[in-house]
Amino acid sequence: MSLLVVGSVAYDGIETPHGKVDRALGGSATYISLAASFFGPVQLVAVVGDDFDPDDLRLLESRNIDLEGLERAPGKTFYWAGVYSSDLNDRTTLTTDLNVFADFKPKLPERYQAAPYLFLGNIQPSLQAQVLQQMNTPRLVAGDTMNLWIRETRGQLLDTLRDWDVLLVNDSEARMLSGEYQLRRAAEKILAMGPATLIIKRGEYGAVLFRRDGYFITPGFLLETVFDPTGAGDSFAGGFMGYLAGCGADPADPAAQRQAAIYGSVLGSFCCEQFGVGRLATLTRDEIDARYREFRAFTQF
Amino acid sequence: MSLLVVGSVAYDGIETPHGKVDRALGGSATYISLAASFFGPVQLVAVVGDDFDPDDLRLLESRNIDLEGLERAPGKTFYWAGVYSSDLNDRTTLTTDLNVFADFKPKLPERYQAAPYLFLGNIQPSLQAQVLQQMNTPRLVAGDTMNLWIRETRGQLLDTLRDWDVLLVNDSEARMLSGEYQLRRAAEKILAMGPATLIIKRGEYGAVLFRRDGYFITPGFLLETVFDPTGAGDSFAGGFMGYLAGCGADPADPAAQRQAAIYGSVLGSFCCEQFGVGRLATLTRDEIDARYREFRAFTQF
Repeated sequence: MSLLVVGSVAYDGIETPHGKVDRALGGSATYISLAASFFGPVQLVAVVGDDFDPDDLRLLESRNIDLEGLERAPGKTFYWAGVYSSDLNDRTTLTTDLNVFADFKPKLPERYQAAPYLFLGNIQPSLQAQVLQQMNTPRLVAGDTMNLWIRETRGQLLDTLRDWDVLLVNDSEARMLSGEYQLRRAAEKILAMGPATLIIKRGEYGAVLFRRDGYFITPGFLLETVFDPTGAGDSFAGGFMGYLAGCGADPADPAAQRQAAIYGSVLGSFCCEQFGVGRLATLTRDEIDARYREFRAFTQF
Repeated sequence: MSLLVVGSVAYDGIETPHGKVDRALGGSATYISLAASFFGPVQLVAVVGDDFDPDDLRLLESRNIDLEGLERAPGKTFYWAGVYSSDLNDRTTLTTDLNVFADFKPKLPERYQAAPYLFLGNIQPSLQAQVLQQMNTPRLVAGDTMNLWIRETRGQLLDTLRDWDVLLVNDSEARMLSGEYQLRRAAEKILAMGPATLIIKRGEYGAVLFRRDGYFITPGFLLETVFDPTGAGDSFAGGFMGYLAGCGADPADPAAQRQAAIYGSVLGSFCCEQFGVGRLATLTRDEIDARYREFRAFTQF
């Protein structure tokens, strides 16, 4: 079944100990859509400027991503640049030029409104709410947020969060949102805010999926080289949502959610193997399934 | 079967965000022995001073730990004091008084020399080698080390390491020993130094067990409150070794090693629930087995 993804499409300048790129395709919706596209059809709602490279359009199209909802506005595409620390665990933002993204008002093409699976990428919570209002009745609504919105627009965030089935955040966001340091306590407070499922991403250490009836820990894949972690969290989200949409399982089924979380970890790990979307652009479903089996092999006892 | 543990017995001064103790029973061999004692008999080789509290002796005896090898020397017991950061991820050492531990020369009672399982706690590598020379032919030799020995006595460490079956270290020690940051690369180099099995402990994130034919990831248990992480890594070692000695399985059997690593994580997690050895002193085998089943429940997919 179709997955609708709303978020940012951007150009990124990235510097890691392994090298540097000045202007690579990026943005949360890009990573989510590419990662999800291995499992089934994806519809994208985002905005780009008139500088957007036709080759990047072709890459997205070639991956089964519907671009009717990709608005082209006069001006420049969202640009972000950052540099990673030598151990890749920290990054410093050098530039954030919102450009056309500053006035982004997501508008859903009519045929997108019936999408059964919706992922609200990290944008202003009131815009996330506006997207949800344009939808019919999706089977699964999931979304992401960030420290900025938790701090600056907490009320709006709590308002829209109430209607989500799944929230995906990283550990520092979960701590900030809940005011609790230990993840189990943080999860308890966040689940009381509305979502029936909470996924807390822990970078190289994987993720924890919390439900009111239990939790599931997926480790991170041990890469030999982490080339560039940009987009790994979004690729996790794309793998998770893509798998659920693709297999059409009951999105609240605990077994399906666990499998989806492993696919999330698999996609997040591949994402780190090259700069930007480089690895996702060449990845195959066979490679994904082989790594999924590897997860089973190194976690079973 | 019997497990022989060599290492330090100490008094610790510990300060965490949850409180403070001035003089609590501690030391690597104490935690290892207590954690292992839930699975079968333990023989302890260590040294204490004439200030050692008879209540602490009674605690060790009550847990099935053979104290014939616990030397009592004139002077004071090894004393360590440290304070943890607010998130418990860092600690600063305030005091290290080696006292009687400075002249520790481990001497094995004759009936210890036939112990089939040996764990060499974190002491000077040449002392670890001397212990090994006093043994008959143990089925399994495992040991720990630390940054100090990796830096100051690297040659001695590599000499004795060659004869070990299992090395247990934490991630920063593995990086220092191998000169590699990514754990898979670090493991490859360390396995080439001799041990057929390497366990890299990752604090709250669990551990990875590496062998030449594969690896196994155990997550850390998600505690609601981490009271005091002192001794958690040693408790992991004790749970791992204790389980292998207790079930008498082929210590190179991959399935037994995986189960042992889970028991290691279980014991490490309980250790953090109270100050010092407080939780290990009241723990029961039923509680351990219940948490082991919980690990299965939150890792299966």
